[in-house]
Amino acid sequence: MIVEFSIVPIGKGEELAGPVARIIDIVDRSGLPYQLTSMGTIVEGEWDDVFGLIKECHRRMRQEAGRVSTHITIDDREHARGRIQGKVEDVEKTLGRQLKK
Amino acid sequence: MIVEFSIVPIGKGEELAGPVARIIDIVDRSGLPYQLTSMGTIVEGEWDDVFGLIKECHRRMRQEAGRVSTHITIDDREHARGRIQGKVEDVEKTLGRQLKK
Amino acid sequence: MIVEFSIVPIGKGEELAGPVARIIDIVDRSGLPYQLTSMGTIVEGEWDDVFGLIKECHRRMRQEAGRVSTHITIDDREHARGRIQGKVEDVEKTLGRQLKK
Amino acid sequence: MIVEFSIVPIGKGEELAGPVARIIDIVDRSGLPYQLTSMGTIVEGEWDDVFGLIKECHRRMRQEAGRVSTHITIDDREHARGRIQGKVEDVEKTLGRQLKK
Repeated sequence: MIVEFSIVPIGKGEELAGPVARIIDIVDRSGLPYQLTSMGTIVEGEWDDVFGLIKECHRRMRQEAGRVSTHITIDDREHARGRIQGKVEDVEKTLGRQLKK
Repeated sequence: MIVEFSIVPIGKGEELAGPVARIIDIVDRSGLPYQLTSMGTIVEGEWDDVFGLIKECHRRMRQEAGRVSTHITIDDREHARGRIQGKVEDVEKTLGRQLKK
Repeated sequence: MIVEFSIVPIGKGEELAGPVARIIDIVDRSGLPYQLTSMGTIVEGEWDDVFGLIKECHRRMRQEAGRVSTHITIDDREHARGRIQGKVEDVEKTLGRQLKK
Repeated sequence: MIVEFSIVPIGKGEELAGPVARIIDIVDRSGLPYQLTSMGTIVEGEWDDVFGLIKECHRRMRQEAGRVSTHITIDDREHARGRIQGKVEDVEKTLGRQLKK
């Protein structure tokens, strides 16, 4: 399954690049395929691997802030693998052209 | 922490009351405090209890549908307990009046 | 359509009951049917009415904070009206029992 | 502001690349900067431009399906421009390395 998540500390200032970088370090070490976008982090894997990772990231953020707001979206489709790039490529194929990356 | 989640089967028809009722049965048996709203289910508990429950609900829905879209929102605040009602009551106290339930 | 939204100021402190109360005052004056939950505000109406309201609430919060994070979920179903209570009642009917409010 | 949105038809089949491609065509013609990811579409612009676009995309999907579920996330920060790439680059700068695109 593909999962997008974003973890935001409440009440710790507007600048989030530092906290997000510490989260991405954890994601990177997990070995799961991932993509960082301007709105969240997209990972692909089985439930326990993905949610073990998100739990670790959320807890890390809670060490920095007394209140944390986390949003998670799951797209879970039978037999789907390699879909972080694959879903975008399917749309490009239907459109008959490549999109900006 | 308080967690709202919604689990939607894709491609299985527009009418969702039946699938949602089967999910609510699982939530009810979990023993966690919860509230069903028109847009999702709100539960309160520790990470492992809440995500154990959501995993079970998500898997149940995947037995009915080959593709499932799940959204989860976490509000995790230090020392916060009894917040499904408490957060609404805090806003009512600030407003100086009760809101429709 | 039914729409749930939550508007969170980033970097302005952990306590959100005050800012949320000011938003609810705006929602209340709009005349649209609504419900405040611990995780957001649910309103029902046509696109322009609902998004006119959310724009006003979001702008109000931006006067208090230099950065604002807003989440919106739409459930738009043909001919559906009175669904803030109706959807929960449909699930209760399927379950054959009433849920806690 | 930066806004991510995803528009999903309920009950019209599991395969969404076709409907999503028709949405992306509308986004592309809008002239707003955008990025398609596996989990949604990210656009940058002022409120009225962004929500005029999302309304048009949502309505297009409603012509194909009697029920549509749309999720929208806004990150609105004062004076922020060019942030679809900029936010990712800020994290890379903090990490001291480039991330996979």
